[in-house]
Amino acid sequence: MPYQYVVIVGVGRLGSILANQLSRLGSSVVVVDRDEAAFDNLSTEFSGFRITGDAAELSVLRRAKLDKADCVLVTTQHDNVNLMVTQVAKTVFHVPRVMARVVDPSREVVYHEFGIETICPAGLAVNAFLQALQGGPEAEPS
Amino acid sequence: MPYQYVVIVGVGRLGSILANQLSRLGSSVVVVDRDEAAFDNLSTEFSGFRITGDAAELSVLRRAKLDKADCVLVTTQHDNVNLMVTQVAKTVFHVPRVMARVVDPSREVVYHEFGIETICPAGLAVNAFLQALQGGPEAEPS
Repeated sequence: MPYQYVVIVGVGRLGSILANQLSRLGSSVVVVDRDEAAFDNLSTEFSGFRITGDAAELSVLRRAKLDKADCVLVTTQHDNVNLMVTQVAKTVFHVPRVMARVVDPSREVVYHEFGIETICPAGLAVNAFLQALQGGPEAEPS
Repeated sequence: MPYQYVVIVGVGRLGSILANQLSRLGSSVVVVDRDEAAFDNLSTEFSGFRITGDAAELSVLRRAKLDKADCVLVTTQHDNVNLMVTQVAKTVFHVPRVMARVVDPSREVVYHEFGIETICPAGLAVNAFLQALQGGPEAEPS
């Protein structure tokens, strides 16, 4: 994994799996969520810092040392939060790699207008369903 | 699209996009949700039937004419509902093609034990994030 210090904002299902995997792949991972209960999603082996706070506040992002991060992934369930935090990560903290989860596929264009790299789970799932259906009857499970 | 009559259970963000797309691709699409407000997610051009009711009740699935469906997609936010409805679609209504959205990736194995074909948005997103990161610095947006 080419990133040493990764901050993950939003530790729901997606954020927690990413935190566990990146940690296992050797990155130092710091997680941020305003809901302390979200950290229960992390695996017991996850050894990174956990910061409880609203990532919309600069002080919280400073506590997460965004200025030292070489990668920030923003994966909350709220597009407005994701847009804002990714923008701040890029323009205030100059993080070299910033990616966001897009919640509502129709908002993806807004992220791109701000030059933010995105992954959209719902969009990926739609494509996967349509591809599977267009392939015709299910292949025998292997 | 090789399917004539598709029933979609759960019309949130994912289900509604699938309903709109399959409808546009020429399938007859019936949507089922227990929350009538969910139908607001459908595009104005969506012309299929909308059935308000709990898909965990056989009577609701009968109203959706699952016995006539050649494809059922179950995309609610609840794995227990998705597992149950897909099982009923297969074993009671003998629908030829049944697919489920998996909400919690750790539950995917349970679907597979029941022989249910799955799409897991969170799993797809994790893979997409990791692939993008492992590829190193972001390519210039095209």
